[in-house]
Amino acid sequence: MNIGLDMMGGDYAPLEAVKGVSLFAQEASSDIKLFLFGDKDVLEPLLRDHALPVQVYTIIHAPQVIGMHEHPTKALKEKQQSSIAVGFQYLAGNKIDAFISAGNTGAMMVGSLFSLKVMEGILRPTISTIIPKENGNTGLLLDVGLNADCKPENLNQFALLGSLYAKYILGIDNPRVGLVNIGEEEGKGNLLAQAAYPLLKANEKIHFIGNIEGRDVLLDKADVMVCEGFTGNVILKFAESLFDLNHRKNINHPFFETFDFEIYGGTPVLGVSKPVIIGHGISHARAFNNMIRLAVKMIDTDLHAKIKASFLSN
Amino acid sequence: MNIGLDMMGGDYAPLEAVKGVSLFAQEASSDIKLFLFGDKDVLEPLLRDHALPVQVYTIIHAPQVIGMHEHPTKALKEKQQSSIAVGFQYLAGNKIDAFISAGNTGAMMVGSLFSLKVMEGILRPTISTIIPKENGNTGLLLDVGLNADCKPENLNQFALLGSLYAKYILGIDNPRVGLVNIGEEEGKGNLLAQAAYPLLKANEKIHFIGNIEGRDVLLDKADVMVCEGFTGNVILKFAESLFDLNHRKNINHPFFETFDFEIYGGTPVLGVSKPVIIGHGISHARAFNNMIRLAVKMIDTDLHAKIKASFLSN
Repeated sequence: MNIGLDMMGGDYAPLEAVKGVSLFAQEASSDIKLFLFGDKDVLEPLLRDHALPVQVYTIIHAPQVIGMHEHPTKALKEKQQSSIAVGFQYLAGNKIDAFISAGNTGAMMVGSLFSLKVMEGILRPTISTIIPKENGNTGLLLDVGLNADCKPENLNQFALLGSLYAKYILGIDNPRVGLVNIGEEEGKGNLLAQAAYPLLKANEKIHFIGNIEGRDVLLDKADVMVCEGFTGNVILKFAESLFDLNHRKNINHPFFETFDFEIYGGTPVLGVSKPVIIGHGISHARAFNNMIRLAVKMIDTDLHAKIKASFLSN
Repeated sequence: MNIGLDMMGGDYAPLEAVKGVSLFAQEASSDIKLFLFGDKDVLEPLLRDHALPVQVYTIIHAPQVIGMHEHPTKALKEKQQSSIAVGFQYLAGNKIDAFISAGNTGAMMVGSLFSLKVMEGILRPTISTIIPKENGNTGLLLDVGLNADCKPENLNQFALLGSLYAKYILGIDNPRVGLVNIGEEEGKGNLLAQAAYPLLKANEKIHFIGNIEGRDVLLDKADVMVCEGFTGNVILKFAESLFDLNHRKNINHPFFETFDFEIYGGTPVLGVSKPVIIGHGISHARAFNNMIRLAVKMIDTDLHAKIKASFLSN
């Protein structure tokens, strides 16, 4: 299994990326090989300092870096030797099985959509986030910002993509799907939610339980919470802000510690042909380690084949 | 000043409504008269038990009750002797200066829109909520559910309505308006947010500071936070859920205590010709008291004349 990691992406790269690789290498099985994309001259001494066994990794020299605020399409086009561009070349060329970056999110999305294929039958890929539940369980919220405007059928597809992810990656059997809405009964909501409800209800591949409201997000009511990317992104960032707030207020409650995104690592891009994971710009070692582990799990469970099969049989 | 209160609305009516009136009466000035709408036979003994001075209130007999889950339009039409229907008759007839209810929200909205007039120049009335800020200040979020689908101009009007409310009721001078969005820069967001941004930027009657994200909602970044009612309702209910969570988890932190909606009482319907306040279904005495106090403030500051003047000069 070959996992690709952009070593130059994120506010604390490459040092935290190296530390993350180091954490991972301490417990990794020997059949996992890491392909580390970045400037060889920078990476080699760093990796040496961290005493990483050379059989664990291969450095793929990519001397250019796409900055966090560069224009994605322009940067990818102009910087073909950047760690993100080279990473996607390797992924598209089957030299790696998954690609991870905490770098420029837009560039990662453009790379996912144009270097890889969107899976057959899928209208729009999606990104998601883990939402910690009050009782210790975890739920999945999607879309969280890739698709700010959606059609009802997009939400219906997100529901299936999220259900497959919840089943194979989160280990939730027969995950309950809730439509994020502003009322409990069918017929409530904006035009999109009203139109999405009957599609979800008729979808035999998911276990739809109806509408959930803002107050239900942290409760263990639905495992997969579906909405367009505007509302999802607002919920995600609101929830994330509770982690810092918890610290600033010296509340230090374990529940709010579960809002630390580093635990979950990053978000997979669901709906494209191969595993891509996008990390938070402020990722530290722990997040990098968890993103690599997530990639391993996505490959181990063959999630992408499961998704492909589910959509082909539509 | 005559304030009308639906005594039969809310899950704990009429007892908590009576207790709320009692709390209010202890500190009210003598020029405020309360008009209490409800079943005389039920209210009289309750009010007597609470030793309310008779000069404070007048019972307006309204023997019917609109249930919390009745169809709003149908119920208002068929129950003309209900406390909500009679209350709006009094408000429309200038016998009271404001009307408050914790009853059927839909019926309160239908009553507001059809018994009263929407103010000239206002496309859609709106409901809002107070959002407590981490530093102890308060912000206003609107719309929170009345307008699940909006046009850009609606958001622009909500911004002005919210600014006037923030100025006169919350006492915030030159309130900062933020557009709830999923990115910081102009041009980010869904189609609605992208189209609303330039309108807000060009609006000389408000102090627009640009986009705010989910992570900024609890920070003291914008005083007035504008979005369509779908996102706003999800934020509101998510935020509200933190209050109960705080108790269930025995966190008991004072910051989360500020998420107790009873402190703020209820939401005014902004954009209709007279003060209407809608309470939470689970309102207790404190919420009723605070809603009456809010009505007094709205009348004292002549908020509606300020709104009228602002929109007429558009």
